Amino acid sequence: MSADIKPIGIFDSGVGGLTVLKVLRERLPGERFLYLGDTARLPYGSKSATTVRRYALNAAAHLVARDVKLLVVACNTASSEALGEVTAASPVPVVGVVEPGVRAAIATGARRIGVIGTEGTVRSEAYQRALARLAPEVHVRAEPCPLFVPLAEEGWGDHPVTDEIACHYLGPLLDWGAEALILGCTHYPLLKPSLRRVVGPKVMLVDSASSVAEAVTGDHSELMSPSRGDDGDVHIELTDASDRFLRILRAILGRDPEHLEVVDIAGVA
Amino acid sequence: MSADIKPIGIFDSGVGGLTVLKVLRERLPGERFLYLGDTARLPYGSKSATTVRRYALNAAAHLVARDVKLLVVACNTASSEALGEVTAASPVPVVGVVEPGVRAAIATGARRIGVIGTEGTVRSEAYQRALARLAPEVHVRAEPCPLFVPLAEEGWGDHPVTDEIACHYLGPLLDWGAEALILGCTHYPLLKPSLRRVVGPKVMLVDSASSVAEAVTGDHSELMSPSRGDDGDVHIELTDASDRFLRILRAILGRDPEHLEVVDIAGVA
Repeated sequence: MSADIKPIGIFDSGVGGLTVLKVLRERLPGERFLYLGDTARLPYGSKSATTVRRYALNAAAHLVARDVKLLVVACNTASSEALGEVTAASPVPVVGVVEPGVRAAIATGARRIGVIGTEGTVRSEAYQRALARLAPEVHVRAEPCPLFVPLAEEGWGDHPVTDEIACHYLGPLLDWGAEALILGCTHYPLLKPSLRRVVGPKVMLVDSASSVAEAVTGDHSELMSPSRGDDGDVHIELTDASDRFLRILRAILGRDPEHLEVVDIAGVA
Repeated sequence: MSADIKPIGIFDSGVGGLTVLKVLRERLPGERFLYLGDTARLPYGSKSATTVRRYALNAAAHLVARDVKLLVVACNTASSEALGEVTAASPVPVVGVVEPGVRAAIATGARRIGVIGTEGTVRSEAYQRALARLAPEVHVRAEPCPLFVPLAEEGWGDHPVTDEIACHYLGPLLDWGAEALILGCTHYPLLKPSLRRVVGPKVMLVDSASSVAEAVTGDHSELMSPSRGDDGDVHIELTDASDRFLRILRAILGRDPEHLEVVDIAGVA
């Protein structure tokens, strides 16, 4: 298969990474996409680095076997804890979400940047290290927000309870004087209405979806298909298809998926 | 190995089932216990019945291979969606948590019994069916409470936010006139301080831990060890040992575990 018509592989622990797929599809309408959500084993964010690495390698191997031309690790926890291992094991280029998110945050001009994410993402210090490398003059502080993913999955992105929990988690970052906040988890954009109320109008909320699209089109333009004037197709594979995940999937895509399949990736490596 | 000195196997999706282990250990001080928490793949409650059955069969096969004399399915979701499959596949007797919880609720004399649990547990209708069979005169209503497990894991069992979320989930059951509430998930006893405030002093909160112990000692007395005057040992196996799970484990046990091992059960069947 020529690189032109091979799909771009996108992988996330669940369906949150569809927020990244949506932006990529808008920017790259001629491309084919294969999205893999490891819904049978999610969440990754509360699990150990050892387990996250094993799962991420399974997922990458599955997508490589499906002949993708590029691999986007849309899961922040997997990008933070396993990008090196996945890149080393992959015969195709790999794009994570951490560095694009960091570049977008630096571009805001903020001098104090807060990072919020899962326990795994914060523990890994991947955002902190990337910020120190790309903008050593910037101050950074990170806080884990374990209840944000369940709240997003419950559909409570605009709910007084979410405001209260966000006050609890973000209070220390706001007191510290954060000027920009990296939403270091693909689920968090779903909480934007509540988060915006809590942080006020001045703090910039940075999500990595747009900057991931730039990393894909800018750094790997040789792999992209010339626009063929027709829409590329999107295949979605999940390791579990409970009603709950399908409901969230529809909420993010705004419609039913065209091609959806349940696959088993456990033990693939 | 004679049945006397074989361990009792207990299985849960995570560490919540340790609330059942604690009660069993108090009631059966001469027994050995082998506890398996499938922390690498939790939660089960939001996943499909197909996935829950596969995971429960993996876990049961792992414990049977470790030569347990009896299998306690401490996970409500697995008990609700996979008890039949696990029992059919197991060469040793299997005890679930649904029927013991239902018996305990009936024993309160309540005529209107509410059930709260994960989406999987409520969707399976296992509690509703058991109540209809054992006490057809009782009225039953079930509500899923997806945020309760994350709140328990966050250690927010006595927190104003938990009160608020509990009001949201339990309001319909209280308006309906529930006299007893079955806590149909091993994590929920950790939320008792908040739940008690929300339901008031008159509604009985029924958790299945004590009645599971009765089901084990009453129905399977021939398998129990005569008291040897010394404490039996407890081995804990987890499929993932993140700091988060170890923290919750210590909070439930009130101490460090004596024997803890990380095991891989994926694909065991």
